[in-house]
Amino acid sequence: MISNTDLQTLANQLRRDVMEMTTASKNGHPSTCMSCAEIMSVLFFSQMSYDTHDNPDNDEFVLSKGHAAPILYAALKRAGKIKDDLLNLRKFGNPLQGHPIPKYFPWAKVASGSLGQGLSNGIGMALASTLQKRNYMTYVLLGDSELAEGSVWEAVMFASHYKLSNLVAIADINRLGQTRATMLEHDMTTYKKRFESFGWNVHVIDGHDITQIKSALSKTHYAKPTILLAKTFKGKGVSFIENKDGWHGRALKADELQKALDEIPEQPLPLVSIKKPHKQRNALDFTKPSKALPPLRYKKGELIATRSSYGDAIKRLAEADSSVVVVDAEVGNSTFANAMEVFDESRFIESFIAEQNMIGISAGLSAKGQNVLCGSFAAFLTRSYDQIRMAALSTLDLTIVGSHAGVSIGEDGASQMGLEDLGMFKNVLGSTVLYPSDAVSAEKLIELATNTKGISYVRTSRPKTPVIYSNSQSFSLGNFAVVKQSNDDILTLVGAGVTLHECLYAATLLEKMGVSVAVVDCYCLKPFNEKKFAEFSRAHGGLVHVVEDNFREGGIGETILHAVCNTSVLFSHQYVNSLPSSGTEKELLGAYRLDAASIVQDVLRLQKNTEAKK
Amino acid sequence: MISNTDLQTLANQLRRDVMEMTTASKNGHPSTCMSCAEIMSVLFFSQMSYDTHDNPDNDEFVLSKGHAAPILYAALKRAGKIKDDLLNLRKFGNPLQGHPIPKYFPWAKVASGSLGQGLSNGIGMALASTLQKRNYMTYVLLGDSELAEGSVWEAVMFASHYKLSNLVAIADINRLGQTRATMLEHDMTTYKKRFESFGWNVHVIDGHDITQIKSALSKTHYAKPTILLAKTFKGKGVSFIENKDGWHGRALKADELQKALDEIPEQPLPLVSIKKPHKQRNALDFTKPSKALPPLRYKKGELIATRSSYGDAIKRLAEADSSVVVVDAEVGNSTFANAMEVFDESRFIESFIAEQNMIGISAGLSAKGQNVLCGSFAAFLTRSYDQIRMAALSTLDLTIVGSHAGVSIGEDGASQMGLEDLGMFKNVLGSTVLYPSDAVSAEKLIELATNTKGISYVRTSRPKTPVIYSNSQSFSLGNFAVVKQSNDDILTLVGAGVTLHECLYAATLLEKMGVSVAVVDCYCLKPFNEKKFAEFSRAHGGLVHVVEDNFREGGIGETILHAVCNTSVLFSHQYVNSLPSSGTEKELLGAYRLDAASIVQDVLRLQKNTEAKK
Repeated sequence: MISNTDLQTLANQLRRDVMEMTTASKNGHPSTCMSCAEIMSVLFFSQMSYDTHDNPDNDEFVLSKGHAAPILYAALKRAGKIKDDLLNLRKFGNPLQGHPIPKYFPWAKVASGSLGQGLSNGIGMALASTLQKRNYMTYVLLGDSELAEGSVWEAVMFASHYKLSNLVAIADINRLGQTRATMLEHDMTTYKKRFESFGWNVHVIDGHDITQIKSALSKTHYAKPTILLAKTFKGKGVSFIENKDGWHGRALKADELQKALDEIPEQPLPLVSIKKPHKQRNALDFTKPSKALPPLRYKKGELIATRSSYGDAIKRLAEADSSVVVVDAEVGNSTFANAMEVFDESRFIESFIAEQNMIGISAGLSAKGQNVLCGSFAAFLTRSYDQIRMAALSTLDLTIVGSHAGVSIGEDGASQMGLEDLGMFKNVLGSTVLYPSDAVSAEKLIELATNTKGISYVRTSRPKTPVIYSNSQSFSLGNFAVVKQSNDDILTLVGAGVTLHECLYAATLLEKMGVSVAVVDCYCLKPFNEKKFAEFSRAHGGLVHVVEDNFREGGIGETILHAVCNTSVLFSHQYVNSLPSSGTEKELLGAYRLDAASIVQDVLRLQKNTEAKK
Repeated sequence: MISNTDLQTLANQLRRDVMEMTTASKNGHPSTCMSCAEIMSVLFFSQMSYDTHDNPDNDEFVLSKGHAAPILYAALKRAGKIKDDLLNLRKFGNPLQGHPIPKYFPWAKVASGSLGQGLSNGIGMALASTLQKRNYMTYVLLGDSELAEGSVWEAVMFASHYKLSNLVAIADINRLGQTRATMLEHDMTTYKKRFESFGWNVHVIDGHDITQIKSALSKTHYAKPTILLAKTFKGKGVSFIENKDGWHGRALKADELQKALDEIPEQPLPLVSIKKPHKQRNALDFTKPSKALPPLRYKKGELIATRSSYGDAIKRLAEADSSVVVVDAEVGNSTFANAMEVFDESRFIESFIAEQNMIGISAGLSAKGQNVLCGSFAAFLTRSYDQIRMAALSTLDLTIVGSHAGVSIGEDGASQMGLEDLGMFKNVLGSTVLYPSDAVSAEKLIELATNTKGISYVRTSRPKTPVIYSNSQSFSLGNFAVVKQSNDDILTLVGAGVTLHECLYAATLLEKMGVSVAVVDCYCLKPFNEKKFAEFSRAHGGLVHVVEDNFREGGIGETILHAVCNTSVLFSHQYVNSLPSSGTEKELLGAYRLDAASIVQDVLRLQKNTEAKK
C-alpha cells in the first residue's frame, strides 16, 4: 500500500509535469490539470487495478474533461505504463494528442474533448462489466463546467434508474470555467442536493486531501452509483494561478514556469506499484466465432416495412452473436428495437428519451467489445450528432438505425421526418451509410453494418414495401443493385427506400409507353463504387435521374454527383425542396414529384430535352 | 371570471374534441392530450391574457409536448381564436398539422414535436419580455417522458441561475411514455426534490383539479422560475384508456370513440371571454429603421482572424440595431462573442456550456422579434443539431457563428476541429451557409446573415489571415468572388477561409512558373449561383480544383459539383480524408495537401493529365 505522503508527492509531480508539458507545447490547459492532481494520484497510484491497456479486466477510467489530457498522460507515465516523452505533447502524429484520441493513445478507449459525454461512455463500460461477467469498476472524471451539459444529466438519471453500483464519478469542482465562474461556483451544498435528488450516493470532499479522496472512494453503495463532489482550486499549488481568472487554456511562459515550479515541492519519487486486475475466468469471451445466420425466408411481393426488418435482423444477429446488445431511446415499438427486449431482455438497454446518452452508452459498450445496435427516429438522431461524431473520432464500431425517414412517414408532419440524417451521417469520418428498400436488403444491410468498422448508419422507412430481392441476393459495401435494365435504356433511374419502388413502377409504366429505363437501387450511399456506377449509367442512356425522399443536400444525389462528374453522363435530381406538410404518403410523394406518375412525366421531359440537344 | 365548473366543462369538451379529431385523422395522440385537459382549460380560458396571435403583449404559450397538438388547436377553437374545422387535423396543407408548425399555424411561434426543446424556447421568450420592457408571462407545457432529455435540464439550470420569474413551466406527469412507464412514474416527491435542488419554485398538484391548478398558477415567486408538477393520468376520463399501456400514439376506432364519448360528461358550453393583454406603451419597438452601419476601415494585408471579426461585427450591428442580442456557450473569449458583453451586457446572454439550450433560447428570442447571433466552436454546434433543425422548421431567423473550423486550428486536436459543420448546415431546410476568408468578408457576411431569412451559418477560422478585400467590396447571397483571373487561366482554384489564402499563394507561385490560374472565393456555399460559376470556370480553363479544410462530404466541393455537373468542366477536390492529429497549422495543411506547395504540385499534375487527354 502506497502511503498518503507518497501519493501527495506524486500529485505534486503530476503538477510539475503538466506545467512543463504545456509550456513545451506552448498551449494546453495546465490549470485544469492542477485542480485534479490529488484525484488522479489516488486513482492511478492507489485505487485502480490495471495492467496493459488491453486487459479487459482493468478498472476503466474515462477522462470526461478531456482538456486535462496532459495529467492523464503524466499519470500513466509515472505509473510506468507508457514510455512516451511527455514533452512531445500535442506534436504532430504523437500519441499525446491535445485531447485523448484512442487511435493515437489506446489507453483512452473513447475520445474526449467535447464536454459532457464521458459519463455516458462510462455507463456503457459499467454495463459491459456486468454483461461480460467481469467485475472491474469504471471511474469517470468530470469537470464542473461540463455539468451544464444536459447530456450529463441524461447519464445521471440513467445510472441511478439502473442502480449502477460499479460506476464512480468524480466531479472536479474547481469553480472556474473558460471565461467566468461556473453557475454554482463552490456551492457544494447545492451540488450535493442535486445529485442526491437524482438518486446518487454522494460524498462531498476536499479534492486536495488524499485521505478524504481515498476514504470516499472506499464508500460506494451496493445499489447506487457513487459521485465524489471534490471541492478543488483551478491551478492549485501555484500562487499566481490558483483560483485566478484568465488561466483556462493558457500555458505558462518559460519564466512563469520557473516561478511556478519553485512553488511546487519536489521530493524524491516513491516506487509505484500498480495493482493488477483479477482475471475473470468465467467472463464471456466474444472472440469465439459467432454462429452463422440462418437463411432468410421472404417471398417476393410480401409487404413489409424496412423498419420492422430491424426487429427481425436483431433477433437473427442476437441469436448468432452473444456480444450483440441493443440500445433504444423509448421508441422501440416504432423502430422495432423492442425485438431485443422480447428475445433477451438482458441485452436490451432502454435509455428512455435521451438520444445523447443512448449514443454515449453505445460508444462505451462498443469500446468494451460489444456489438452494438442503437437508434431512434432518423430525425431525432440529430440530437446526438456530437456523440456520433465523437464515437467516430474514437474509432469505435456502431450500427445506428434511423427509422421514419423522409416525407413518406405522412401524417405526423415535418418535425418527425428524417431529412437531415443521410447527410449528417455521410459527414461523419469513415462512416458507412446504408438505405434498404425491402425486407431482404434491410436484414442483409443491417447485418453488413454490424460487420463493418466505424459508424454504420442504416436508414429505415415507415411504409410497407414489397420484397423485391431473392433471399440469396448479396449486398456489399460500396455497391449498388441493378433492379431493372435492358440494352435499350435511355436513362438510369436511381432511388432507395420508398422511391426505389416508385422508380420501378414508373419504369413499368414507361415500358408500356415504349420507353425503356434502367433502375438502380442505391442501397449504399457511402462508400460508393463511383467508377462502376459511371460505367453503368454511361451504358444505360448516359442520363441519370435521382429520386430521393431527402433534401437536395447530403443524400443520394450527391453520392451520384461524385460518380458522374468528369464523365459525359448527365444528371437530374428530384428531392424534397420545401417545408413538408402532414398528409398521406401518397399526397406527399406526389407533392415533391417523388411518385411514379411524376417520375414518368419527368423522364419524358428529360428525354425530350436530351433529344432536342442532339 | 369564469367559474371552476365552467372550466371543467371546457376541459371535458377538449377531451371530446381531441378524440374526435384523432379518430377523424385516423392517427395522433389523444391519450396524451386527455391528461392535460384541465391544465389547458385553466391556461387558455382563465389564466392567460391573449388577443390575436400577433399581439406582442400576449402571454406566450409553448407546447413542448408537441404531440399534444390537437388539444392546442381545440383550446384555441373553443376560445374563439381560430375558425378551422378541427376534423381537418393532419390533412395535407391544413393549418392543423400533426405537430405544431408556425408556417401552417402561426399561433405556435416555435415548432414542437422533437421533445425537450420547449422550455429553452420559453426561456428565450421570457428573456425577450424583459429585454423589450413588456410584462407578458411565458407558460411552457412539458410532458414527463421528455424530462429524460438533457436539454430540459440545461434549461432548468439556466432559468434558475438567471432567476426568470416570468416563466412558468407545467409538467404533465401522466406516468406513461410511448412503450413503458417513465423512470419516476408518479413519484412526485422525487420530482419535487429535483426541481427544488435546481432552484425552482415548485408546486405539486393534482393536475385534474381545476382549483389546484389555478391556485398554483397564482403562486409564482419574485426571484425564481415556477413549475407546476401536475400528477395526471394519460387518457384521463375514459375507463379503457386511462392509465393504461398501449394507447400512446393511437387514435380510437369509430366504435371505441362512441364508447369513449359516452363516458365524458357533455354539458352546454359556457361563454368564453379571454382577457386581453395590456398594451405596453413603453415597450421597445424594433420596427423602427435601424441605423446604417459605419464603414469598415481595414488595410489590405492586416492580419486578423475571422473569428475575431465576429466580435467586431457584433459591436457594429449592436450599435445600429437595438434588437440585436448575442447568446454564448461559455467560449465567448475564443469565438469573440464576448464583444457583446463589453458593449452592452444587457444584450449578452451566457448559456454556459449548454449548446442545445443556447440554440433553443435563441429560437425563442427570434420568435419574439430579436435579431439573434449565437454560436460556439463549429465542432460543438453538432451538439445542437436537433434544435437548429427545429428552428428551421419554425421558419425563424438565426445567425449562428461557428469558430475553430477545420484542421487549421492545430494543436488542440481532432475533437475541437469543426469538420462536419458545413454539411450539417447545408442539410438544414432553407439555410444559408457562409465562409469568410478575411476581416472584410467576415464582417460583411455576418451582417448579411443577420439580414437573411432562416438559419444563416457563418464559419470562422482560428488562424490570422491577411485582409484581401477593399472596405467597399460587396458580398451577396449566392455569389462568389473572383480574387484572381486572367485570359490565360488553365484552371480555377476554389477555396474559402484559410485555403483561399493558400490558393492565392499557390497562384502566385504558379504564375512565376508561367502557369496562370484563376482563384475563386466560395464565400457562400448555399445558396450558390451555379450557372454563373459554371460559366466562369468554363471560361477559365474548364477545370476546377477545390481545396477545403473540411471532409469530402458536405462542403465546398459538393456546392461546386452541383454547379459543374452537366457541363464540360472537370472537377478535382482536395479535402481532409483521415482522422487528424494535433500539430501546427502548417503541418496539418501540408498533411492534407491543402497548403500552397501541395496545391502547386496538384495543379501541375492536373495540367499534365489534361494535356495528356487532349
